[in-house]
Amino acid sequence: MTVSSQVSSEQAEFVSAVAGKLNGFLSGQQDLMAGVSADVAPLIGSISQLVTGGKRLRALLCYWGWRGAGGGAGDPDIVTAGCALELFQAAALIHDDIIDRSDTRRGGPSVHKRFSQLHEAQGWALDSGRFGDAAAILTGDLCLSFSEESFTGIGPRAASGTPARSIFNVMRAEVMAGQYLDILEEVAGPVRDRAGSVDRAKSIIRYKSAKYSTEHPLALGGALAGAPAELLRAYSEFSLPLGEAFQMRDDVLGVFGDPETTGKPAGDDLREGKRTVLVGFAINQASPAEADYLDRTLGNPGLGAEEVEAIRRIIVQSGALEATEALIAELSSQAFAALERLPLQEVPLTALSRLAEAAVSRAA
Amino acid sequence: MTVSSQVSSEQAEFVSAVAGKLNGFLSGQQDLMAGVSADVAPLIGSISQLVTGGKRLRALLCYWGWRGAGGGAGDPDIVTAGCALELFQAAALIHDDIIDRSDTRRGGPSVHKRFSQLHEAQGWALDSGRFGDAAAILTGDLCLSFSEESFTGIGPRAASGTPARSIFNVMRAEVMAGQYLDILEEVAGPVRDRAGSVDRAKSIIRYKSAKYSTEHPLALGGALAGAPAELLRAYSEFSLPLGEAFQMRDDVLGVFGDPETTGKPAGDDLREGKRTVLVGFAINQASPAEADYLDRTLGNPGLGAEEVEAIRRIIVQSGALEATEALIAELSSQAFAALERLPLQEVPLTALSRLAEAAVSRAA
Repeated sequence: MTVSSQVSSEQAEFVSAVAGKLNGFLSGQQDLMAGVSADVAPLIGSISQLVTGGKRLRALLCYWGWRGAGGGAGDPDIVTAGCALELFQAAALIHDDIIDRSDTRRGGPSVHKRFSQLHEAQGWALDSGRFGDAAAILTGDLCLSFSEESFTGIGPRAASGTPARSIFNVMRAEVMAGQYLDILEEVAGPVRDRAGSVDRAKSIIRYKSAKYSTEHPLALGGALAGAPAELLRAYSEFSLPLGEAFQMRDDVLGVFGDPETTGKPAGDDLREGKRTVLVGFAINQASPAEADYLDRTLGNPGLGAEEVEAIRRIIVQSGALEATEALIAELSSQAFAALERLPLQEVPLTALSRLAEAAVSRAA
Repeated sequence: MTVSSQVSSEQAEFVSAVAGKLNGFLSGQQDLMAGVSADVAPLIGSISQLVTGGKRLRALLCYWGWRGAGGGAGDPDIVTAGCALELFQAAALIHDDIIDRSDTRRGGPSVHKRFSQLHEAQGWALDSGRFGDAAAILTGDLCLSFSEESFTGIGPRAASGTPARSIFNVMRAEVMAGQYLDILEEVAGPVRDRAGSVDRAKSIIRYKSAKYSTEHPLALGGALAGAPAELLRAYSEFSLPLGEAFQMRDDVLGVFGDPETTGKPAGDDLREGKRTVLVGFAINQASPAEADYLDRTLGNPGLGAEEVEAIRRIIVQSGALEATEALIAELSSQAFAALERLPLQEVPLTALSRLAEAAVSRAA
């Protein structure tokens, strides 16, 4: 078997083991819920639906972090860790979609939308939107608890006081802090100093995205396999710039991506008022009048195609797109240079290199 | 020292140890957050504020469940468990207040209100209410993670696979299921069969309230001290009817209580559309026209004093208040009879008896 096909086959086996374990876990929870009331079934149902899709980027990074540190292929502990990360991500998405008022997720209705549709279909009383939000807050809370229940299920390697447990705790706290910085910048950005907008946006993607989506999952896998501190540091030198580049690619796609490919309506990030690095550069490099226009229009849910086009033009003509692409290129080469230095065997090294390629060069 | 003064002094020591531990825990988290950004301080600040108040009913039940099962006074493990329960309760309150649109909590603004006031005070852009809700969703998530981090900090007694860990997991899942049943009944109650309304309301208080607020905390303390299964069963026979009576007392106060004493505006539970056992009896026992009136008015946030008075009249004249009081009395005597049968030493027995008295006979 070639290295490349070994990577593929190990990865496929892991992904399928995670899916199987998630099914088992959630069906156990469904049994517990059935003991409470049949009415509660949609909570677990919507979690199941959500964890079925997705790229499983975090679980895969965790897996290869583990394998790179000498963990065995097919070990049930790393499968359980993968489940915990997927459940955590599902919980974050459920609450994120309420916060961002996103009605679609992975090609279907988001969880709050699912519940408001259920309300309408059943002809229930009072406000369907409010019911949907309330039910999704509770579903996200349940999913957050499940994530931790699953993580604790790893047993001794993830027990109180272990490095893996610390990473899991810091990961959760940092991503929530990062998400807060994100919503804060949406509202405070327009009245804060423009010169600081790029730095603030960089801090947001670091905590909300790069640490959460790449650095911590990779480190978690390593720590579960007992990686020494220098390997975890080497992992970070690779994963942190990778995660930042990944998120900036996402931000560029959010403004310029093809809705057919990204699955999101064009300009939705602008309507939500996301103050990304791309927007930060534009605010800084555009004329004062253009920057005022951005401050006035960003976050307006009613933005039409023409206004979206005008914003895009400012982003391009101010050189913000170019500056962002240059930063993505710089961060990517940092990540790949760090990857070359990683003291890993060929299989995990190839796997991480493939994941990194996919992360920064994607179109959706 | 008399038994009664020993109870008081042990309880005061425990409550103060929990407060100290919570302070230490949250100040450690504040340090971590300061490393992310000074902007994040209000998240921990609002959690600190919330865990400062409250009756600490759950932590105290946990403590006496532990002492009753032979756990030592002043053991740090039970203090940590008390912190975890308080943090969990704070997380639940933060999200509950968003769901119920409650702007006050423990005499001050609720967390979402705090953040929307911050938004207004700072002159930030976009919608302050939406920002407040989003920030409070994230603060509640953070607090939920803290609760679990604290619980895991107990170490071996609460490790994966222990009875205490199972109780903690079931407690979280059941209360979220119960809260969902609660919001579901608000919207589905008016179109479901009236005959089932009391039973559905009973199921809601069992999961949302009784199991969560009394049964599981007491069992958790017992399990941490290694209580045998028969003691945990005996605990339940006492705590479950006690918790149900406690919640029904709360529901009666929500409609008939003195706003001065309860700290909540009169009729707020009616404006929220809570379908309690009290309301269930009224729906069942009132005339069809009156039941229709209840279905039409409950959950209307604009209910005036006259309509609140009309609803109260229906509740009284239908015999619903009387039926509820009779049920509270019956459940209370079940609880006290079970308390007498508990094989406990005098100090924990006296303490539980005092907590039970306070729970069912309070005016606020």
